[in-house]
Amino acid sequence: MSLIVHKYGGTSMGSVERIQNVARRVAKWHAAGHQVVVVPSAMSGETNRLLGLAKDISPRPNERELDMLAATGEQASSALLAIALMEQGVAARSYTGWQVPVKTDSAYTKARITSIDDARIKADLADGRVVVVTGFQGIDDEGHITTLGRGGSDTSAVAIAAAIGAQECLIYTDVDGVYTTDPRVVPEARRLSVVSFEEMLEMASLGSKVLQIRSVEFAGKYRIPIRVLSSLTDPLMSLEEEMTSGTLITFEEDQKMEAAVVSGIAFSRDEAKLTLLAVPDKPGVAYSILGPIAAANINVDVILQNQSVEGTTDFSFTVNRADFPRALEVLEQQIGPAVGAREIRSDDKVCKVSVVGIGMRSHVGVASLMFRTLSEEGINIQMISTSEIKTSVVISDKYMELAVRALHKAFGLDQEGGSL
Amino acid sequence: MSLIVHKYGGTSMGSVERIQNVARRVAKWHAAGHQVVVVPSAMSGETNRLLGLAKDISPRPNERELDMLAATGEQASSALLAIALMEQGVAARSYTGWQVPVKTDSAYTKARITSIDDARIKADLADGRVVVVTGFQGIDDEGHITTLGRGGSDTSAVAIAAAIGAQECLIYTDVDGVYTTDPRVVPEARRLSVVSFEEMLEMASLGSKVLQIRSVEFAGKYRIPIRVLSSLTDPLMSLEEEMTSGTLITFEEDQKMEAAVVSGIAFSRDEAKLTLLAVPDKPGVAYSILGPIAAANINVDVILQNQSVEGTTDFSFTVNRADFPRALEVLEQQIGPAVGAREIRSDDKVCKVSVVGIGMRSHVGVASLMFRTLSEEGINIQMISTSEIKTSVVISDKYMELAVRALHKAFGLDQEGGSL
Repeated sequence: MSLIVHKYGGTSMGSVERIQNVARRVAKWHAAGHQVVVVPSAMSGETNRLLGLAKDISPRPNERELDMLAATGEQASSALLAIALMEQGVAARSYTGWQVPVKTDSAYTKARITSIDDARIKADLADGRVVVVTGFQGIDDEGHITTLGRGGSDTSAVAIAAAIGAQECLIYTDVDGVYTTDPRVVPEARRLSVVSFEEMLEMASLGSKVLQIRSVEFAGKYRIPIRVLSSLTDPLMSLEEEMTSGTLITFEEDQKMEAAVVSGIAFSRDEAKLTLLAVPDKPGVAYSILGPIAAANINVDVILQNQSVEGTTDFSFTVNRADFPRALEVLEQQIGPAVGAREIRSDDKVCKVSVVGIGMRSHVGVASLMFRTLSEEGINIQMISTSEIKTSVVISDKYMELAVRALHKAFGLDQEGGSL
Repeated sequence: MSLIVHKYGGTSMGSVERIQNVARRVAKWHAAGHQVVVVPSAMSGETNRLLGLAKDISPRPNERELDMLAATGEQASSALLAIALMEQGVAARSYTGWQVPVKTDSAYTKARITSIDDARIKADLADGRVVVVTGFQGIDDEGHITTLGRGGSDTSAVAIAAAIGAQECLIYTDVDGVYTTDPRVVPEARRLSVVSFEEMLEMASLGSKVLQIRSVEFAGKYRIPIRVLSSLTDPLMSLEEEMTSGTLITFEEDQKMEAAVVSGIAFSRDEAKLTLLAVPDKPGVAYSILGPIAAANINVDVILQNQSVEGTTDFSFTVNRADFPRALEVLEQQIGPAVGAREIRSDDKVCKVSVVGIGMRSHVGVASLMFRTLSEEGINIQMISTSEIKTSVVISDKYMELAVRALHKAFGLDQEGGSL
């Protein structure tokens, strides 16, 4: 008997029939003797419907009230799932975030979990119940409802798994696992059966939309194995079959028997690049540039500084494309004049492509193969950024698909057991 | 400056535009210096939509989970109203029942309020905020969400008004007040500007659908004046005009300056009559009959027992028509044989028509005018039941409209200052 957390996304909860299928799957796990906590998202479309009503009333709705509003989606889906479980003959009970309670800070619409009380969940599990806990939400110290932001139910599930000491957190979604890259771009993309926590962290941060990045951070911090798998399979398939499907995200490197050097190619199209040319090179110049950008609440991703001629330096950075107009305004009106840059250049038609792999730690040649591949395709590299387990390049976004496909092939990711 | 509770029904909250109109109206009250607590229902159709999903999943959904589900409707509408108020420039904050908290017993789907903590509401009012509190719901001693049953938001509003010591509870709805009878049956029906609490209680219990009966009981217990008025008027009409519109339900009899003897004609079509003929008349016979009916969870309304010939008695009672098949089954299979009735008769085509008026206490002749009027129309009276302020008759339901119109005219209710 093990203690397992299941998380179901909005698509998996999207209709009465799908909720019934979720209940059948959970009932199967329960019947096999496992203790199960289920964390559902709101029915697909519901959160958008609610936030749309708010936007129709106010262009900038109050965030406390937005959380009050949005939290109802998961409360409703959780109650419906508990009803469906009881209809399957399984004792079940649903709880909201505040009932558990899942305590968070007070950063409405993007709150962070600070603690989870496991007493109520554990008592119901001991009574033989399946416990359904709303994803996405919590309660702050003042008793106000908070939400964790889009995709927050993943984080809820992993945090609950950590709090109750679950053996594994199964994230059921509408894809059947984590792929070497996006199959819509590269049809040969393969599902990974195992991926390390660090790789998943890089892939999530680099634009793979399978899991919310904070859920992966949580999993790493509390060493909770996550399995990403499909909710669209036969809910009554055997447990053995189910536990070998999907992708296991593990923090045990040795579990990954046939570890490839490179696990996947991640990419993100929503990038924009800003460059200050010939800034007088003196201490504090980086802070003079990035301080005002941070003050404008804009996240900076890749940062590059090159020595230029005659005591000046060129300084480049990338931001999310949605923040580009604001970043450019700050650069032109405040920073440029202040630091005495000769020229400001900008390009909002760039993308970032990254090769990710835990094997890069011990294998040389990954970066050079990457650069050679891009060069053979005639793709100019504008910026390079590296970490222990990834190498990223910023290139013109018109080459994105070409670059991803070429790299996927060059690293042998389209072949079982591939990658160098 | 006074402290006022506003309650808005589902129709009044039924769209973004209507919620904005509610916000305009509340903002007007707030701008005039009043402290306002607003209790909204769920947007019209929402509660039915949610309960429909539950019914699609299970024919008899668990009631704790139903409350968890249904409570989301008011939480969403309350947050939307707070957002709309802030958009009008009014500081506002919404609270769920558990946040206040509104404590109830644990009778899911039909819970009763046991206490309301006014601290949080009062603190926000003192800070100049409009406070929005979800109607219809509360929390029990174990921390589970409860709901008060259909129309429960009226009860929430009156209970909150009592808890915070409000001067008046304004119930905004899609009708503009309480009428002498249903205008769909009698076009000459007039709106009453004042009605006593006791009359309203009788009218609500006799089928006038304007207010949930428990809200009227609450208002009487805590002596909270209620005004029923329309939410479909111009939200920016003057406060003076607004405070003379609708119907004031008062417990101060002397406020009702031009008190009529009879205030209205109430009726209910959903009645059924059951009769046991020639039951041996001995002590305890009423209990032998009504005990099993109560055990079957069937409410009995009018009860009549007449001495019959030779030591037997005829026993009749009415039940809600929906309970009729079950009541008849209990009567035929259990009670009839047990008490030795000669015959069982039943009629599910009856209705109840009642003349209601606090003036009946001190005026004779109301009952006789009622019986004479019905007799002149050739309507046979099957049962009669009286209380201090009402006289009810059970008649064939095909005469219902005829009886209501004739009585409305006979008591002069179609004329201003009418009724005898």
